[in-house]
Amino acid sequence: MNALPLSPRATGRTSAGQDAARLAAIRGLIADEMAEVDRLVVARLDSEVSLIPELARHLVAAGGKRVRPMLTLLAAKLCGYEGGRQVRLATSVEFIHTATLLHDDVVDESDLRRGRSTANALWGNKAPVLVGDFLFSRAFQLMTEDGSLEVLRILSGASAVIAEGEVAQLMTTNDTGTDEAAYFAVIRAKTAALFRAAAEIGAVVAGRPSAEAAALAAYGEGLGVAFQLVDDALDYSAHQALLGKTVGDDFREGKVTLPAILAFQTGDAEERAFWRRALETGDQRPGDLAQAQALIGRHAALEATMLRAREAGTAACEALDPFPDGPAKRAMFDLVDFCVDRAY
Amino acid sequence: MNALPLSPRATGRTSAGQDAARLAAIRGLIADEMAEVDRLVVARLDSEVSLIPELARHLVAAGGKRVRPMLTLLAAKLCGYEGGRQVRLATSVEFIHTATLLHDDVVDESDLRRGRSTANALWGNKAPVLVGDFLFSRAFQLMTEDGSLEVLRILSGASAVIAEGEVAQLMTTNDTGTDEAAYFAVIRAKTAALFRAAAEIGAVVAGRPSAEAAALAAYGEGLGVAFQLVDDALDYSAHQALLGKTVGDDFREGKVTLPAILAFQTGDAEERAFWRRALETGDQRPGDLAQAQALIGRHAALEATMLRAREAGTAACEALDPFPDGPAKRAMFDLVDFCVDRAY
Repeated sequence: MNALPLSPRATGRTSAGQDAARLAAIRGLIADEMAEVDRLVVARLDSEVSLIPELARHLVAAGGKRVRPMLTLLAAKLCGYEGGRQVRLATSVEFIHTATLLHDDVVDESDLRRGRSTANALWGNKAPVLVGDFLFSRAFQLMTEDGSLEVLRILSGASAVIAEGEVAQLMTTNDTGTDEAAYFAVIRAKTAALFRAAAEIGAVVAGRPSAEAAALAAYGEGLGVAFQLVDDALDYSAHQALLGKTVGDDFREGKVTLPAILAFQTGDAEERAFWRRALETGDQRPGDLAQAQALIGRHAALEATMLRAREAGTAACEALDPFPDGPAKRAMFDLVDFCVDRAY
Repeated sequence: MNALPLSPRATGRTSAGQDAARLAAIRGLIADEMAEVDRLVVARLDSEVSLIPELARHLVAAGGKRVRPMLTLLAAKLCGYEGGRQVRLATSVEFIHTATLLHDDVVDESDLRRGRSTANALWGNKAPVLVGDFLFSRAFQLMTEDGSLEVLRILSGASAVIAEGEVAQLMTTNDTGTDEAAYFAVIRAKTAALFRAAAEIGAVVAGRPSAEAAALAAYGEGLGVAFQLVDDALDYSAHQALLGKTVGDDFREGKVTLPAILAFQTGDAEERAFWRRALETGDQRPGDLAQAQALIGRHAALEATMLRAREAGTAACEALDPFPDGPAKRAMFDLVDFCVDRAY
């Protein structure tokens, strides 16, 4: 058992500045490849149709954490791969992710992402839907150029599961009867599936045996579940400015995430009536978000959500048992810490 | 030169009933394979997330003409292919097409398609965007199962071009300065690219030389251009009920299609002022569609549009010169006639 339990750092909240420094340290090991990914992202979102790079660059310039392509690069490194194929495939992963972001923002009618206006807020719904389709197609062009049918199988499968997860999330929206099992099914599909695939293909390019691919897939899945749990906790936390994110999005959209599920299930009749009104009927009033945060606080639902995130993170680390210790493995442990322990 | 010039049938308008009979005759040659495609479409749009098959079946049940998968099947037959791979790939083509329909309807805010309420009219914008993504992913899963990287290259490239064409169309919307060249660039991308790819992959599964693949690609492109020209003419014709389609969609959405371009360019100052008000400013008034139809009639713009459709159809037929005559080639000529000569 060489999985990292929670590191000392993971027990305390960190600032956004510390987060950035930690992420930079993890990226150090794969700095050259990440720079190549950054270049390839820009090069391959080009098009004679000027609105496409314009809109796509808006999102890219907003500067995501690029955790998913990092996973592919780190997994390839962990497998001792020394060729260059992982760069194109990591770019493909980032394109799939960016396409889903564009479509999510249309679906959620979001106005802000990463502290900037969303593409749909600036361009309406039409262009983001179509540019998302373009990026999705580009992702498959990149995979085809690479030429691995196994990678194509993994990523086309993940894409289908992501879409299923997003639709399943739609179906649980406004339903306070959503239980933990349904919630976890949604986040495994909508978020963890791409983390899982991104890590798994690192083993595929390295030509490693299927047991190692499965171990990396399990690592990605645990990390993805942890990542989404933290995201859902952050949406009820009071540190919007730190994350550059509007707090309360899920609440306003009637999304039933784990903090709300736990507060609802442990709440009394009056509290449940509040949750039903606010999440099911869409009848939200001034002060409702603060009330939701207070109820979540009363039932320690954020702490419970974070505990599950840590458990998923620990499972991710344990999945790496088959691999020898070394810089790549330590970076992947650090990435778990980073994702679980983002400022909130 | 063994290309069919315009057949006698192609010179007169046909009824919807005659259309259906002619399409059935063309399908006769590939009836077994089309039945397999129909079964595979239903089987592969299944999902544990019930809203996905529910929504997708709504569209499939509306019963499109399935021209694109027919192209793949006919092309494979023309190439003498006797295996079974074309069925899965034709299904993949239909899934890409269905995904773009779902996203188009969101983009166009359409209420009707094929005489039925659109998915977005029934389910809102969210589910159709996500189910489109699901179908798109399924398409790539089907291609991956087939295992031809050449097919993947052709169809992922076509998908990217389609998205570019749709975005380019957005950029010419409300712009009466759009010229024929810009219009043709849009329809080659948004429509003809998939027709082209659908036909081309028929040669690929048959393992035919690249010259034959290129000939089939040219056939598909000509047919696709003709198909879209006719569609755009139909949108200004008075036979909505025959097609089960709302007439005047393009006009109301400010899409600048060839009939409008030709009427605008040959119109006088007063007429141009009308087109600018109606298409550019969105200031549309009762009677505007009738006025647009009258101006299009005055300048014989529908006839000019149909002439270009016939030219594209003739080019499609000529592209088949390298292939010997026979039932498949005759069916492909008939398909051109059918597409050019649909009731309008």
